[in-house]
Parts: sequence; C-alpha cells; structure tokens
Amino acid sequence: MRSVFISLILLGGASTTAQAQAPDHPMHHHEFPGDSAVIRAIYDEALARGEAHENLRQLTKDIGHRLSGSQSASEAMQWGRGVLESYGADSVWIMPVMVPSWTRGTIAQASATIEGTEHPLHVTALGGSVGTPNGAPLRAKVVQVKSLEALAALPAEEVKGRLVLFNRPMDPVLINTGAAYGGAVDQRGRGAIAAAQAGAVGALVRSMTHALDTLPHTGAMYYQEGVDSVPSAAISTVDASWLAHQLKDHPDLEVSLEMNCQAFPDVEQGNVIGEWRGSERPDEIITLGGHLDSWDIGQGAHDDGAGIVHTLEVLRILKAIGYTPKRTIRFVLFINEENGNRGGKAYAEAAKYDHANTAKRYVAALESDAGGFVPRGFRIDASDSATAAIQTWRSLFEPYNVHQFRRGGAGVDIGPLKALTPRPAMMGLSPDGQRYFDFHHSAQDIFENVHKRELELGAATFAAAVVLLDTHLTEFH
Amino acid sequence: MRSVFISLILLGGASTTAQAQAPDHPMHHHEFPGDSAVIRAIYDEALARGEAHENLRQLTKDIGHRLSGSQSASEAMQWGRGVLESYGADSVWIMPVMVPSWTRGTIAQASATIEGTEHPLHVTALGGSVGTPNGAPLRAKVVQVKSLEALAALPAEEVKGRLVLFNRPMDPVLINTGAAYGGAVDQRGRGAIAAAQAGAVGALVRSMTHALDTLPHTGAMYYQEGVDSVPSAAISTVDASWLAHQLKDHPDLEVSLEMNCQAFPDVEQGNVIGEWRGSERPDEIITLGGHLDSWDIGQGAHDDGAGIVHTLEVLRILKAIGYTPKRTIRFVLFINEENGNRGGKAYAEAAKYDHANTAKRYVAALESDAGGFVPRGFRIDASDSATAAIQTWRSLFEPYNVHQFRRGGAGVDIGPLKALTPRPAMMGLSPDGQRYFDFHHSAQDIFENVHKRELELGAATFAAAVVLLDTHLTEFH
Repeated sequence: MRSVFISLILLGGASTTAQAQAPDHPMHHHEFPGDSAVIRAIYDEALARGEAHENLRQLTKDIGHRLSGSQSASEAMQWGRGVLESYGADSVWIMPVMVPSWTRGTIAQASATIEGTEHPLHVTALGGSVGTPNGAPLRAKVVQVKSLEALAALPAEEVKGRLVLFNRPMDPVLINTGAAYGGAVDQRGRGAIAAAQAGAVGALVRSMTHALDTLPHTGAMYYQEGVDSVPSAAISTVDASWLAHQLKDHPDLEVSLEMNCQAFPDVEQGNVIGEWRGSERPDEIITLGGHLDSWDIGQGAHDDGAGIVHTLEVLRILKAIGYTPKRTIRFVLFINEENGNRGGKAYAEAAKYDHANTAKRYVAALESDAGGFVPRGFRIDASDSATAAIQTWRSLFEPYNVHQFRRGGAGVDIGPLKALTPRPAMMGLSPDGQRYFDFHHSAQDIFENVHKRELELGAATFAAAVVLLDTHLTEFH
Repeated sequence: MRSVFISLILLGGASTTAQAQAPDHPMHHHEFPGDSAVIRAIYDEALARGEAHENLRQLTKDIGHRLSGSQSASEAMQWGRGVLESYGADSVWIMPVMVPSWTRGTIAQASATIEGTEHPLHVTALGGSVGTPNGAPLRAKVVQVKSLEALAALPAEEVKGRLVLFNRPMDPVLINTGAAYGGAVDQRGRGAIAAAQAGAVGALVRSMTHALDTLPHTGAMYYQEGVDSVPSAAISTVDASWLAHQLKDHPDLEVSLEMNCQAFPDVEQGNVIGEWRGSERPDEIITLGGHLDSWDIGQGAHDDGAGIVHTLEVLRILKAIGYTPKRTIRFVLFINEENGNRGGKAYAEAAKYDHANTAKRYVAALESDAGGFVPRGFRIDASDSATAAIQTWRSLFEPYNVHQFRRGGAGVDIGPLKALTPRPAMMGLSPDGQRYFDFHHSAQDIFENVHKRELELGAATFAAAVVLLDTHLTEFH
C-alpha cells in the first residue's frame, strides 16, 4: 500500500495540487498512508479526472429516460454493463428480474371549463394509472381536499361522480425536504384508492414539489384489490393552486381529463452487477448501487442517473488510485426502483439464498438515490455498534464539508437486505436536498440540472465510504 | 417575550407546521422560550412567508446591475432605503461616499487570426481597465504564462510588444472554491501591471471559474504608479484553453483586442443605513450588511443581491416574530465593494470617530457576500474567546444543516472594522460555494440562478446569528 500511495502522489497529482492541499494532507512519504490520505486521493481523482459527468451525459442524453420494461431501459442495461467492463470489474452479469410494463401513451391532458371558457391544466398520468374510460375525456365537477382523511369525512354526495383534487402542499418549513415529501406523498400513492372508495371518478394530485411552477411531477400510485381503479393524474402546483382558487367562486366548474396510459404484461429485464473480488475476504460482499430505471419524463438525471454514475465512478476511482479491496465489492445497477422495487427484492432474495447455502456474507450495502447535489453526509441503517463506529468517521469527512451522520433509511434498493442475518451495515448517500424536488419525476430532471463538481463530490464521498467500510468492518463487532 | 412567542405559535405558524416540527421544537407554552425556539421561529418565518426572493427580483430585474457611480446604483440606493423604511427601521439614512466611475463602453471584443482566418474570442474588459489605444483594435502576438512569476522570468524579447495570456486555472481539487479563486486571482488583479513591467501591450486573463464555458468573468484589476496602464480583459475558460492549444502549432498567431472602456471622475453615492434601536444597550451597535453595488454585466444576483436581501430580510423576520433587540442593530447596504471598498472604509471611519468621541460601541458585525446558496455556516473573525463562544452555537444550528464554524475573513465590507478597539466580533455567512464561481462577475449572475429556498435559508441563518450575538455578546468577555 505504501508504495502505491507514494506513486499516487508522484504520478497522479499535479504538483500544484500537492502543494495547495498541504494543510489537508497530513501524509508524508515515510508514513504509512492512513484513511485521510486515501480519502484525499479519492477526492483529487474525482475532481481532477472525474468521468461521472460524462457518463451521466451518455446515460441521459444518448439513452434518455428509461422506465422499467422500456426499450431504453434495456439499452441502459447494456450501456452499464459496458462501462463496468471497461472500468475493469472482474466479472459483470445480469440478474434477471421480471418488471412491470406500463406506458404513458400519447395523451395526458386536462382543462377546466369556467363560464364557458376552457383553461388548459398542466397534468400528466401518475405512474401505473389506468387511462380515462376508453381513452376518452372524462368530464366531472371537482372537490378539493387537503388529505385522505378529509376526503373520507365528506358526505357521499359531495364526492360522488367528481374528480378529487388532493391539494395539500409539501410543508415549506421542514428543513429536510424528504420529510416534507413524505408528509404529502400519501396523496399520490393512495389518492386514487381513497377517491374510488368515496365514489369519485378520478384523482388530481398536487405535484410533489415546493416550487410554484407549471411542471406536473409523476410518480408511483397504487390500486387496491376490491376497489375500482380510477384514473389519477399529477397536476402542477400552479394549476392546483389556481384551481383551488377558482373553486371558491365557481364550485361547479368542470374539469375534463383525458389519458390513454396503459399497463402491459411483465417483461424480463434485470439488475446489472459488476464484481471486484476481494484480496483478503472474498466471501464478504460490500454492495453499492443506484437504480438504472427512471420515470418516463425528463431524463432521470438526478433520479437516479446520479446514483448510477456515482456507483460506476467508485470503481473507476478506486482502480485509478491503486486501491486493493480486502472484500468483494459489488457494483449494482438496480432495475425497477420506481414502480415495484423488484430489482432490490430480487437482489435480496439472492443474498438470502447465498447466506443460507454458501459461505458468502453480505456484510455492507450502500446506496445513492437522492440526487447529484453537493454531498452532506449519510443516512445510516445499521446496528447500534456499527452506527457508532461509522459516526467516528465524521472528522475524516470534515475537510470535504460532509457532516451528516444520521440514522435513517439508507435506500429503497438495498432496503430488503435488512432482513439478512447477520444484518449488513447500510449507508445511504445524503446530498443536499433543497433543490431535489424541483426536478424529481418531472420534465426538468435533465442532465443540464446536474452540477459537475457537485456530482463529482458525491462520487468521491460514496467511494470514501466504501473504502472505510472495507477497511474497518472487522472492527464493528 | 413569552407571550410574544406563544402568539407566534398560535397565529404565525400553521397548525400542520407546529405538529410537523415537534421533534425540532423543544418549547412548551409554560417555558420561557430559549435560543432554539427563537431560531425555529426565524426559519419558519423565512421559509413560510419569506420576502427575500421577491426583493431579489425587484433589485435584479426591476433595477438590474448597479456598478458604483451608475444611475442604477443610485436607483438601488433609493429602493433599499424604501424597503428599510417599509420594514420598520427606526431611522434610515444615507452615509455619503465618493465612488469611482468607470464605464465598460460599447465595445469589448477580440479575435485570433490563424492562417488568415479570424476566430472570435469571448472577452470583456476587466473592471477599471483602460481601453485599447484610441479605442481602436490592438493587434499583437500572444505569450501564454501560468503565473506572474513565470512571466517575470521570461526573456524580454519573448514578451515585448505582445499580449500576455494569463492561463492558470482555478485548482479543481480544492474543496473550498474560494481558496481556488484566491489561488488564481492574482492574475486578474496584477496581470496588467506584470504585463506592462515585462514590456507587453496588454493582458488577457483566464476567467475565474471552474466551469468550462464561454462566459468572460470580469472583476477588479489594478494599475501601479509608475507602470504603464495597459488594457486587460477577461477571456472565457473555453477560449483561453483553445488559444493555448492553438499557440502550440501557431506560436505567431495574432490577437486583436478592442475595448473602449473609460474612467470618469468620482461621484457621490453612499451606504444606505437602517437602524433599529436597542431596548437595553442602545449604544452597542451590531452591524450587518451586504453590498448594493455589483459588476455591470449580469444582474449581481448572487454577488451581492443575495447579501442585500438577506440583510433586509433579517429586519423583516425579526419584526415579524416579535423580537425586541437589546442592542442597536444597523442594517447596512454598502456601496462600492467591487472596485474600491470605499463604502466599507467610510463606515469604519465613522465607527472609529464614534468610538473616539461618543458612547457608541460597534460590538459586532456580520456580512453576507458569498452568494445566495444553501447556508453551510460562518467564517468567524473575532478574538479567541469570542470565537470559542460562537462555536458553542454549533448544536443550535445542527437542525438546519449549518455546520461550519471556521475562522476566516468575515467579509470585505466589514473588514475595516477590525481596526477598532475593542475589536468587534465579526461573522461572515458561508453558503455552499460549489456553484458560486459559475456565475460570479458574469452574465449568468442573474435572478434565475438563485434558488428561493436556499436564499431563504441563508436569510434565516443570518438572522439567527444576529439574535445570538444580541443575546450572548455580554458573555463573550
């Protein structure tokens, strides 16, 4: 290791770099390099010679959005496989997964008619929605509610035959925008069920964003066995607020909604997995990943192109700095996070099988699925002792402005691994979240809205966590 | 205070807000509200009912950029005065300051001629530069250097009669982009002097940004008594890199530079000052501010429209939450930070006079002049004991992701106050800096590139620091 890192400094870093970084860089040539020197090398590599941004351009611009089951999702799988191979993974394979197939169709439009004048509304189908009956316009009066509970409390005659406008905004005063999302997203997920149960003919759901703009934001919605499947659409925040305002003076205004989205039988796609075998404990597996699928508007740049290129960049960076992993590192490009999480579930099933039938142990897992913004830290999902051990790394990250080491859900794709015994230590990368929902699931989640340096800092932070887990996991127990 | 904060919760906050924030909100009705409750109220006010974003729109869109000495800078002074008055400052006045007057003129263009083909270059005059002789095109060969020292070491015949291209990039591996800027900006500030001393006819300076784009970034440059004043222009990073590449094969290529920028006699403008008198220690003054002037391209949105609206918003927020200041709070919209700092110097002169001749004491000063991005913390410029006291506030800010409490220059405008005895405790707001130099001093420093929530979080963080200083300053000594 020593000679590797000495060459790193001599060959890899520009001389101005080494000088400029001196205060952050406690390593001298006669010392065995410690964690802080490896981390410094990781950030230098990411910022000076990073490929994450170019990879994101290829994924989002050459391929584009990539909903599970789509042709472009298959193209993205092939692309990811190629990058993992070119970056020197020991082996790369596809773990087959049956995924849902749903298409937005060609029509998703709505308008409000007030005193004979038609006002177009910015809407789009929520993911998984049925179309309007026969793909024809569905015309109905509107009832506005702020919650599922408020809807259930309304007299039947105020809901029956209407479209329900779910219009509770994300709470602006919550600093954690994810919590604000979590506090509003039941309207999207269960709004169609609640609407149908109350006798309504469909649902319009205020888009999940703080921004006041005209973008509809799609996302997963669900139906329930035994409850009619009624169409459900996202409506932009500007239109939702406008409609609520108009309803005060025109309670009998009518909205026409027309969508021809449609579900098809499941198709086979899969998780793309690259493996770099460990030199000391090859049966111990550290999994990291993001999800390759995205919604079918925008380009899935932050969600989750960023997580995919973070994952690929970890492999590239660690090879570039001459790192030798003790454990086996798995780079997983999960499929179908957005509307089913079947990729994450399939991966956990395989892990469960391995734990029961082989010597393999899934000891740690990391996920990046919260955007390509400047990194803030990690959400830790691990035992108390592992969490405490991870929190001691805080000072190592301080020079990089990475400061959050909070407990929390580490990620949807790695989530099912929690059921393993022993339980893996799990970490989710936490980028700054203030801008995330401006773009999330909308036409603005595009390459241009990801910042190169912020993306690179995220990749470096992710890579540093992988190395620290690989280095210190034995100290956790 | 107690009843004030109870009404705050009852009237000011929506009920959903109070519920959602419960874990962050340790206050109960029977408790006297502590620092954490005041801070929570500040952030709630900024995020739920903030006016910083609308104020920034007015300043940047209705008025626009506002270079010292310009008509628009005078308009901005009147606008700022009006907002301070409307927000309820006890008194508002203008402190007269003589400021430089310089105009970019109508022409700032350049091109490179290679084998008879002319290639346009993206350039703009550096602030304060002379025009090209007689405003006519200046045509010369080019010598590229990476530093002032490298230029001084060149043989005279390699420089004489040429244009010097200063082409050292900002170091990408420095996490602190301000440090990367500091490591490159000598080329802009002193490039024209060094060029003239070496016998060159002018300077082209690689723009101060990490981004590879076609925007020239202006900024202050200086001349030196006894050294010829030669024209100096910013050139975009893309063009600087292209030109360096072309010079390898075409060392004799010629660049034509044409600028008719011009200096005029100083004019009177001034610092706009709003004062809110203290209830307990009115002679103790806490100064906070940003700078009203900007460069004359773009709209001065991050630099420093953000600091101006942060400052105004502190007054609005503290009034809205019913805060009663112990000390006198001065809200200062400084003039002429960009090319002279005469506003900051004049303010410090007045403070020096007050210290010598009155009972007034300038006990603390805060500045926001690092952009409207998500806040990270503060740069503290204070005595050891005051610094240590401020650093104990870290836990109060943790719920807001504000974590940096580093020593450092608190700001250019408040900088001259350091000379006072006793020395005021000074704090500079530190927003995240990764995107700052994408926009800084360029045509892209516009309203659209400031994020509403991030701007609001900055205002709240600034306001919280003011309250904490006002509350705890007596404990500093």
